[in-house]
Amino acid sequence: MDELRQHIRRYCQISDAELSAMAPYFSLQTFRKRELLLKEEERCDRMFFVEKGCVCVFFTKDNGQEQVVDFAIEQWWTTDFGAFLSHSKSRLGIKAVEPCTVLVLTRTSKDKLLRDFPQMEQYFRTIAEKAYSAAQHRIRLLYELSREQAYFYFRDKFPEFVQRVPQYLLASFLGFTPEYLSEIRKRAFLKRV
Amino acid sequence: MDELRQHIRRYCQISDAELSAMAPYFSLQTFRKRELLLKEEERCDRMFFVEKGCVCVFFTKDNGQEQVVDFAIEQWWTTDFGAFLSHSKSRLGIKAVEPCTVLVLTRTSKDKLLRDFPQMEQYFRTIAEKAYSAAQHRIRLLYELSREQAYFYFRDKFPEFVQRVPQYLLASFLGFTPEYLSEIRKRAFLKRV
Repeated sequence: MDELRQHIRRYCQISDAELSAMAPYFSLQTFRKRELLLKEEERCDRMFFVEKGCVCVFFTKDNGQEQVVDFAIEQWWTTDFGAFLSHSKSRLGIKAVEPCTVLVLTRTSKDKLLRDFPQMEQYFRTIAEKAYSAAQHRIRLLYELSREQAYFYFRDKFPEFVQRVPQYLLASFLGFTPEYLSEIRKRAFLKRV
Repeated sequence: MDELRQHIRRYCQISDAELSAMAPYFSLQTFRKRELLLKEEERCDRMFFVEKGCVCVFFTKDNGQEQVVDFAIEQWWTTDFGAFLSHSKSRLGIKAVEPCTVLVLTRTSKDKLLRDFPQMEQYFRTIAEKAYSAAQHRIRLLYELSREQAYFYFRDKFPEFVQRVPQYLLASFLGFTPEYLSEIRKRAFLKRV
C-alpha cells in the first residue's frame, strides 16, 4: 500500500497507526496484461487504485471496436463512477495495459472506511475535486482542439505517458486510426529533422 | 439560502442551527441576464451555487466566438474548478443566461467552513463525486454520439432544460451553428407529424 499511503498523506493528516488500521479495507489484486479489472455491463461496486502499472477505460462501440476514453497510471483512482455511485451496471470496461498491481475498494468498504475514519472524507473530497477539474478541462479541450492538435497537446504535456502506452490505444483515445497516428508522428519527426 | 439548505441536507446530516451559523460564509449576489459571474483570465477564487436562474460556462475561441461547454441551473455548483483549486487565472468564463441569484463561496470561506464544520467534507465530497461521474459520462458521450445524436440525447434526457436555454447557446454547446440546429429540429418535427 506504499503508493496509496503516500497519496493519502498528500491530502490529509493521518497517523501511521491509522494508515495501518485501514489496510484491511483494501484488497490487493494483480492483473495480467490485457486482463479485465471491470467488465462492461457488470455491476460496478468497486473503485481501483493503481499501485503499479497502467489501465485503460473503454466502451465497446456498435461496430464491436473498443473505444478508449481514459487511462489511469500509478496513484490514480478509476472506475465507472456513475455506476459505482448509483449501484448500477458499468457502462465502461477497464483493462490492464501492462501487468498491474491494484488496490480494490468496494462500496461497502468505502462506506465503512468513511464511518470509521471520518478524516478520509477530506481525502476523497480532494481526489474527486481534482478528478472533476481535470475532466472539466478535458471537456474544454475536446471542444477546442482538432484531433491532431490533441495529439501534440498530449505529447508535450505528458511525454512519458505518450511513450508508455501502446500506440493503438493512444490512437483510439485520440479518435484516430493507428495508421493516421503513425502518419502524424512521421510528419512531426520530418519537420524537426 | 433555501436551495442550498435543501441541497446540503440531501447529502449530509446537519442541524438547523448549524445551517444558520453557516450563512455568513456565503454571499448572495444577483446578476442580470448576460452579466458575467466570472471573466476569462480573471483570478478564480470563488465557487458559485445557483439559487435561481441559469448560467453558461464558455471560453472564447481564436476567432472571437464564445464556445459554450456547460450550463448550470438551480442547485448546481459551478466555477473553473482547475483554476479554483490551483489559485490560478480562469480559463473559462461564466455568464448569466437568465437573471440569476447566486451564492458565492470564496476559497478562503470554503477553507474556513470546512475547518469550522468538518461534516461539510461529506457534502463537498459527494457533490464533487457526482460532478465527476457526470463529466466522465459526458466524455463518453462526446466519443460515442454524433452531434445530431447528442441533440436528441439531450432533448430526451433533459426536455425542460432544452426548452429553457436560448437556442443559439444550445447550438454552441452541441457544436452546431444555430441554423443547423433549427434544421434538425424541423426535420425531427416533420418526422413526428
